[in-house]
Amino acid sequence: MSSHMIIFQPSGKRGHIKEGKTLKEAANELGVAIEGICGGKGVCGKCKVEILDGFFEKHSITSSMNHLSSIESAEKAFLSADEIKKGRRLSCLARIHGSILAFVPEEARGGGQIIRKAAQDIPIIVDPAITKHYIELTPPSLHNPLGDWERLLSGLKETIEVKNLKIDHSILKQLSPILRDADWKVTVSLWQNKEIKRIEAGLNENAYGMAIDIGTTTVAGYLTDLKTGRVVALDSIMNPQVAYGEDVMSRISYAMSRDDGLDKLNHAIIDGLNQLIERATSKVDLSPNDLLEITVVGNTLMHHLFLGIPPSHLGSSPFPPTIHEAQDIRARDLGLNLHEATNVHVLAIEAGFVGADNVGVLLATEPQEQDEISLIIDIGTNGELVLGNRELGLVSTSCATGPAFEGAHIKHGMRAAPGAIEHIQIEPNTYEVQYKIIGNDKWQTSQDTPGVRGICGSGIIDGIAELFKVGVIKKNGTFNRDLDCPRFIWNEGENFPDFVVAWTPETSIEQNVTITLSDVRAVQLAKSALYAGAKLLMNELKVDTLDRVVLAGAFGSYIDKAASMLIGMFPSCSLDKVVSVGNAAGDGARIALVNHKLREKANKLAQQVKYLELTVEKEFEKEFIAAMYFPHMNDPFPHIQDILDKIPQ
Amino acid sequence: MSSHMIIFQPSGKRGHIKEGKTLKEAANELGVAIEGICGGKGVCGKCKVEILDGFFEKHSITSSMNHLSSIESAEKAFLSADEIKKGRRLSCLARIHGSILAFVPEEARGGGQIIRKAAQDIPIIVDPAITKHYIELTPPSLHNPLGDWERLLSGLKETIEVKNLKIDHSILKQLSPILRDADWKVTVSLWQNKEIKRIEAGLNENAYGMAIDIGTTTVAGYLTDLKTGRVVALDSIMNPQVAYGEDVMSRISYAMSRDDGLDKLNHAIIDGLNQLIERATSKVDLSPNDLLEITVVGNTLMHHLFLGIPPSHLGSSPFPPTIHEAQDIRARDLGLNLHEATNVHVLAIEAGFVGADNVGVLLATEPQEQDEISLIIDIGTNGELVLGNRELGLVSTSCATGPAFEGAHIKHGMRAAPGAIEHIQIEPNTYEVQYKIIGNDKWQTSQDTPGVRGICGSGIIDGIAELFKVGVIKKNGTFNRDLDCPRFIWNEGENFPDFVVAWTPETSIEQNVTITLSDVRAVQLAKSALYAGAKLLMNELKVDTLDRVVLAGAFGSYIDKAASMLIGMFPSCSLDKVVSVGNAAGDGARIALVNHKLREKANKLAQQVKYLELTVEKEFEKEFIAAMYFPHMNDPFPHIQDILDKIPQ
Repeated sequence: MSSHMIIFQPSGKRGHIKEGKTLKEAANELGVAIEGICGGKGVCGKCKVEILDGFFEKHSITSSMNHLSSIESAEKAFLSADEIKKGRRLSCLARIHGSILAFVPEEARGGGQIIRKAAQDIPIIVDPAITKHYIELTPPSLHNPLGDWERLLSGLKETIEVKNLKIDHSILKQLSPILRDADWKVTVSLWQNKEIKRIEAGLNENAYGMAIDIGTTTVAGYLTDLKTGRVVALDSIMNPQVAYGEDVMSRISYAMSRDDGLDKLNHAIIDGLNQLIERATSKVDLSPNDLLEITVVGNTLMHHLFLGIPPSHLGSSPFPPTIHEAQDIRARDLGLNLHEATNVHVLAIEAGFVGADNVGVLLATEPQEQDEISLIIDIGTNGELVLGNRELGLVSTSCATGPAFEGAHIKHGMRAAPGAIEHIQIEPNTYEVQYKIIGNDKWQTSQDTPGVRGICGSGIIDGIAELFKVGVIKKNGTFNRDLDCPRFIWNEGENFPDFVVAWTPETSIEQNVTITLSDVRAVQLAKSALYAGAKLLMNELKVDTLDRVVLAGAFGSYIDKAASMLIGMFPSCSLDKVVSVGNAAGDGARIALVNHKLREKANKLAQQVKYLELTVEKEFEKEFIAAMYFPHMNDPFPHIQDILDKIPQ
Repeated sequence: MSSHMIIFQPSGKRGHIKEGKTLKEAANELGVAIEGICGGKGVCGKCKVEILDGFFEKHSITSSMNHLSSIESAEKAFLSADEIKKGRRLSCLARIHGSILAFVPEEARGGGQIIRKAAQDIPIIVDPAITKHYIELTPPSLHNPLGDWERLLSGLKETIEVKNLKIDHSILKQLSPILRDADWKVTVSLWQNKEIKRIEAGLNENAYGMAIDIGTTTVAGYLTDLKTGRVVALDSIMNPQVAYGEDVMSRISYAMSRDDGLDKLNHAIIDGLNQLIERATSKVDLSPNDLLEITVVGNTLMHHLFLGIPPSHLGSSPFPPTIHEAQDIRARDLGLNLHEATNVHVLAIEAGFVGADNVGVLLATEPQEQDEISLIIDIGTNGELVLGNRELGLVSTSCATGPAFEGAHIKHGMRAAPGAIEHIQIEPNTYEVQYKIIGNDKWQTSQDTPGVRGICGSGIIDGIAELFKVGVIKKNGTFNRDLDCPRFIWNEGENFPDFVVAWTPETSIEQNVTITLSDVRAVQLAKSALYAGAKLLMNELKVDTLDRVVLAGAFGSYIDKAASMLIGMFPSCSLDKVVSVGNAAGDGARIALVNHKLREKANKLAQQVKYLELTVEKEFEKEFIAAMYFPHMNDPFPHIQDILDKIPQ
């Protein structure tokens, strides 16, 4: 049989293809990825290519629309008059009868789609665990009375290669009516080519999933289009477990001290997630039933409580988790209001409280691939730290920072929401304040009435750093009470004043928004825990200086780097090497959602990180006390020495 | 606390029972079976006993109604004035305060149905899917804070080779407390070396499973020791779906005609199985939680209803099942009250209504391995037939036989339980009857008072065959009304007499036990369905004669071979080549339970059998009518010609 030269642009891939094959078959043979979920049945209309007409000297071929089978009516249904004029064809229907130069337009190019994250530009190939396949089946007859499942399986095998494919019991129960209602034309969703998770009538390319980051205080959900890898809706709730304890230790106590403690905590987060999923999906006119997969990250306690695992042994040395490795569990076994067959992938956890969220951070930041020594700080109610590089490997730890950075335990603290002060500057002589609130890019002063509602985490850090810089707060964290500062207000019976950031008229809460001594104490406790943790990791790896500091966490990108270094949240480092990566844990969950092959990598990463348990390190207390000072009792801060020199003491 | 002498009649069982216990509790302690399905809650009213008043010298006790608690209103609701006068009480509510002589009336006497083991002794290698492994682990320490699951896994890997082992979510939740409570010494149950299904403290070698055969009318359970492969308890219940229809077609109609039809049928069988499992396990002091695996067979409809699969398409041509291949489903997904991780293996089904039960028959009888041409008849409410040998392959079909062979739709029919007549002989000249009842090996006559309660399936076949042999019933199935037979009794307004098998004094039900014309008709319908099915299979394979007939079915082993051939239940065959294999379907389920490698073989067998749908075969009706005669309208029966020749016509 004769064959013809076929060339696909822009890749330039080429080869001789047998007479009579379709362009799609030619593309498959030559390794050119063209979109299309219908398996070449001319049903989805995604595989359009453009035929270039004429003699192409460079390629030494003549290409012509006449070298293809004529346009059938099935094909016409998908092509506009304009497209036909342009020379477009459905590659799965057009058959080859001569040499062809074809151009694959951007939208038809399959595979290898790349999404980029906000802060860091790590390219992620879109390759979700869920793949969809459209098939058309012959109905049963007396001559072919094969069962529905076996019929479906043989139809699928004509489209893709599958072995030992299973069908979830909840789908099996619906199989027969769905096939008949759909007139034997269905789209099948496969999970990792292992199990059928959904069967939908007709052609349905939509595929959505959700990545969830369960923080001790905040739970974030990223509703993601699995075709493009893009987030189509994001939403967050306060972790409802806060009602049972604000930090990990108090929740462990709650779980241990009551017979129904674990149940209450488990139901709280499951109910919360159901609410989050319901709200996020409804934003884009979807329902929870439409989600084909969920990925979840969280620190070890959040991970255990989500899975209903008793956490009592996490509360005392040697703090072993019940399980490290990643889990795949059906939504129905967890009580999530999703389609009951939906897979929930829970990322691996490392050790202690360095959980699946930190694996997410590592997936997103990859310190183990770099020569620079990185310190990664994931700031939340529980702080997780990782230190290392390619040569030294990675060592991690966790510390209880408390919820101060999330605006809790702060007199006028609030979540990062409209009305929250997120940045503060203080004039060194007059102590006049200007600030930015979320939702407004302009600096505001006491001349403005912007409707301040409170201060969020980054505002608190900024505010305390500025108060330290202008001498209002001393190195030990107390207010300089002898200062003649017009923004001091004194409450009866207290030894130290509060500092007014915004006067009542600037607020919408009819009171002054202040920073108090106890606010400063809360921040000191939080930052010294992080700093001491970092120091112990550096001792462990025998590292004196940091090449790079990566700030992760929901509000990581809002933090002013200089301010956070000035209050001593981490050891000195060149300021241009301090980077914020936003909610890297959430990004990790998204990466695992969008590319299932990286889950294996995440599992391995989790095993490679060595864990250091701070609470049993003798040095920890000493380091913790020294780190209570701004920026530190003893340690030098060469990278901000110029600022420190100017502080009036 | 004081105790009192309690004696139960007619068994004479006796013993001292503590003051205040109920009579039902006393009966349980003394091994006296009293009916009652409500578990002693005073709700079903089945456990009535009669209190005998007075001083009984033979037993040296005084018995008096005053020795029991007074009659409560709950009890009164179940007792007529007449019964109260007779001294009847609900044994579950009457409490003991003195010595008692109680009589258990016939209808309250409990006693299980008898199922005999297979007649064939097929050697099965004991190789269950569940294997148990005892391991001792080193507790976590600061130097080795590995997670519990990873610790368990590494301990297991020292004992056996495992790869990609998973842990069921329900077990994962209990993992940490179990390991600690057991001081890190546990026995782990693996399912097919793939998944952990149980973790028990210390060394625990016990391993039990249950094989279940869901028949249209009867459900049998074989509680099996997985270490030895032996059945340690067997039990059966009536399929509770009978309430919604007695045969497969009426249950399909029920499922289709009501929105909650499928749910009702599904819940009925699940509830029934829960009850069966509870009862069978309690017989040997186990609980349902102790079962490590369950295997299930049943015809296609029973299979679908058990799994909750809509059966509507099973009701019309081309009758495709939803799925053929074997399923492994967690007990929790099916609503079974077992440990939620327990695997339920549902054997493959063939086609039409030749279901997983028939695969069980093939596993147990292996016709495809033999040179002889075998006809296998699995007799139940739905009959399944398989014909073939090594060379011709296997062809199967199914037909609605109705429940006559199980004692239903027969005037004095009953299940094969104590008191049932199972064999009948009739003297050709006097028409005198002798019979055997279940539980007594001696032939009985009208001279005896054996307490007949009814006739079970094998008794009906025997009786009709004998009546035909002695000329009481004609070839066409009507009674020879002109005969001067002392056992004929005439009911007003009827054209034909009933034949008395046992006179009132021989029974415990205070009436004659008879065979009626409509009983004969029910058997004719059933046997001609089987015969016609067999003929069509023989036509399909172009086979004229049978080398071997295998009778399977719960009561298969009770059937007299000559009698069943004489009524024409199957085509003529050498009588010494007619074998009974008992409940081969149940045996198949047991084989798959005991040896998991044979499941793959069962799956393949299911695929190899060719299915013939009788309802669309033109010849069926003609064959059916011809087969209504005893033994057949035209077909010769050379193997019993000597008997046929002697029949007075």
